[in-house]
Amino acid sequence: MANFYIDTTEVVHEIPQNDRPKFYMFGVPRYTNMGDQAVSLAERKYIENEFPNYQYIEIIEEDGDEAIPVVQENLRKDDVIAFTGGGNMGNLYHNHEEARRKVFSTFVDNLTISFPQSIHFEDNEDGEIEKRKSQEAYSKNPNLVLVARDAQSFHRMLTTFDNKVIFTPDMVLYMNSVDWKFERNGALFVLRHDSEKVVKQTTIDKIKEILGGDRPVERVDTVLDEPKEITPITRDTLFEQQLELFSHQEIIITDRWHAMVFSVLTGTPCLLFGNSYGKGKHAYFDWLEHVNWIDYTDETDIDRIESSLNELMKQERHDYNVKKDFQQLHDIIEENISK
Amino acid sequence: MANFYIDTTEVVHEIPQNDRPKFYMFGVPRYTNMGDQAVSLAERKYIENEFPNYQYIEIIEEDGDEAIPVVQENLRKDDVIAFTGGGNMGNLYHNHEEARRKVFSTFVDNLTISFPQSIHFEDNEDGEIEKRKSQEAYSKNPNLVLVARDAQSFHRMLTTFDNKVIFTPDMVLYMNSVDWKFERNGALFVLRHDSEKVVKQTTIDKIKEILGGDRPVERVDTVLDEPKEITPITRDTLFEQQLELFSHQEIIITDRWHAMVFSVLTGTPCLLFGNSYGKGKHAYFDWLEHVNWIDYTDETDIDRIESSLNELMKQERHDYNVKKDFQQLHDIIEENISK
Repeated sequence: MANFYIDTTEVVHEIPQNDRPKFYMFGVPRYTNMGDQAVSLAERKYIENEFPNYQYIEIIEEDGDEAIPVVQENLRKDDVIAFTGGGNMGNLYHNHEEARRKVFSTFVDNLTISFPQSIHFEDNEDGEIEKRKSQEAYSKNPNLVLVARDAQSFHRMLTTFDNKVIFTPDMVLYMNSVDWKFERNGALFVLRHDSEKVVKQTTIDKIKEILGGDRPVERVDTVLDEPKEITPITRDTLFEQQLELFSHQEIIITDRWHAMVFSVLTGTPCLLFGNSYGKGKHAYFDWLEHVNWIDYTDETDIDRIESSLNELMKQERHDYNVKKDFQQLHDIIEENISK
Repeated sequence: MANFYIDTTEVVHEIPQNDRPKFYMFGVPRYTNMGDQAVSLAERKYIENEFPNYQYIEIIEEDGDEAIPVVQENLRKDDVIAFTGGGNMGNLYHNHEEARRKVFSTFVDNLTISFPQSIHFEDNEDGEIEKRKSQEAYSKNPNLVLVARDAQSFHRMLTTFDNKVIFTPDMVLYMNSVDWKFERNGALFVLRHDSEKVVKQTTIDKIKEILGGDRPVERVDTVLDEPKEITPITRDTLFEQQLELFSHQEIIITDRWHAMVFSVLTGTPCLLFGNSYGKGKHAYFDWLEHVNWIDYTDETDIDRIESSLNELMKQERHDYNVKKDFQQLHDIIEENISK
């Protein structure tokens, strides 16, 4: 039986029958990547703040197949269909791409929004096959709007698909920053274990030597080992725990884009290294280069890395505002209301 | 008497009386910056190719004041008003910004397009004063659409103005590439003499030593000394001459964004250095990082620069396509026609 999360305390198995237009968010993660969990949290906050008339209904990715016919039966013209954002459009994560195709090719008469994503189809046979499948599925929906979260992805989406493409930051940058003024102590390494990893272990080891000594050094990942799964009910607390963890650190070393975002939100100095296809790099240059306590690098020279780290830890915090950068998303939803 | 350039061979002093909707392009340069000349050439090509129903009418920047009342008298609802693109929105070039404000605050009932620009208001008193003037002028026009040619400018426009902002590459990237297969011989330094210059003379001198020897080395600028002025009639030939000059080179060293664009169009290896506020850097990462014979650097270490240069000169040419990246501009003009 499909679960519909209609607010952060309640789960129902039927769609609420009332006069409010509905905003259906498909593809909500149950897996424990805190970046993706933060994305789905931010998506809810965004719609609830900016478009309070909509009733926001979340559907866990695994419930999608069961939920689709139920949503179809209840669908009104002014309802919006959406699929969650992140960094997984393409052929690296077949399960997510398949779930996305199904939603896009089903609800072809309603405004359908692919929330801010980066995209990467590999230049190999699997990449070509999966790209063609996605092109076919996406092309069935004339009301589908793709949102790119960096300029590289904007270019790739425009050259891959015939759908409308708009440009905004990653949704997590819509979240409010926090300033808890904890005492900061320690360096936190937030590093991938997955196929996107490119930063060398020898580089990491040398940075550990530089930052170690008296300073506690820890390694974690934003993909949690515990709990085993996360729902819209539990993610809020876990997100706050991540921000709290970051707020205690002097410096974050990472190859995870969302670890940079958590560093932005908490005012924590952060050096970001690349992944296999530049998703963090591009998002950094597009939206965050003016934030002075974070930086991106591909550097392997340890002396240069050391001076970057020292520079970052000296920076004063300042105001920044990327909320206006969501304007194109706002306009798309606004137009749907007024039409 | 105001001159209206209605095609590349004819100048008139009255607006043609016919049934075609008009596309008025204001701010067309007469000065000899070949980057800006190429922008205005590409703007004409773009509208003439994509929207052949429109009659395209160019107005030289210095003729703007005289032309405005004439255009006002003849204005129809479906006419489009535009102001030329480039890298001069902000307070570094008061004359261009004043001309722009006048056009935007006058034609408030027609679709008004600020063609792809980068923007930079300095963080000082002049920057603040000029920014407020522009905010006041732009806010008078509810039909004004600003086009940002890089993500940094997209963010800055959205946070500075309340107008609609869209995202496309620099117009010159709409021009077709050429492959004249000239024998390549020599290194060409294309360097600024203006206030945006930041690359050090010592770096340039060292690169000259590396590239010199048997190879002819020349220094030019894309701002020409001769002729003294350029019009829509003469710019086409001069643009071809630039492409020809580039097509003869083995390598281009530059701090001019449009010299990189000419290198892209001609398949000429090119290393781009920064200017004072990152306009070339951002445009490179946003649209051109996948073009393998060009690169951007802030590097000062001469050994690293040398290996970049050698790498660039070894690259094979490949297809690239950024024409689809103009989609948001196309949609805006298309909507104006159908409404």
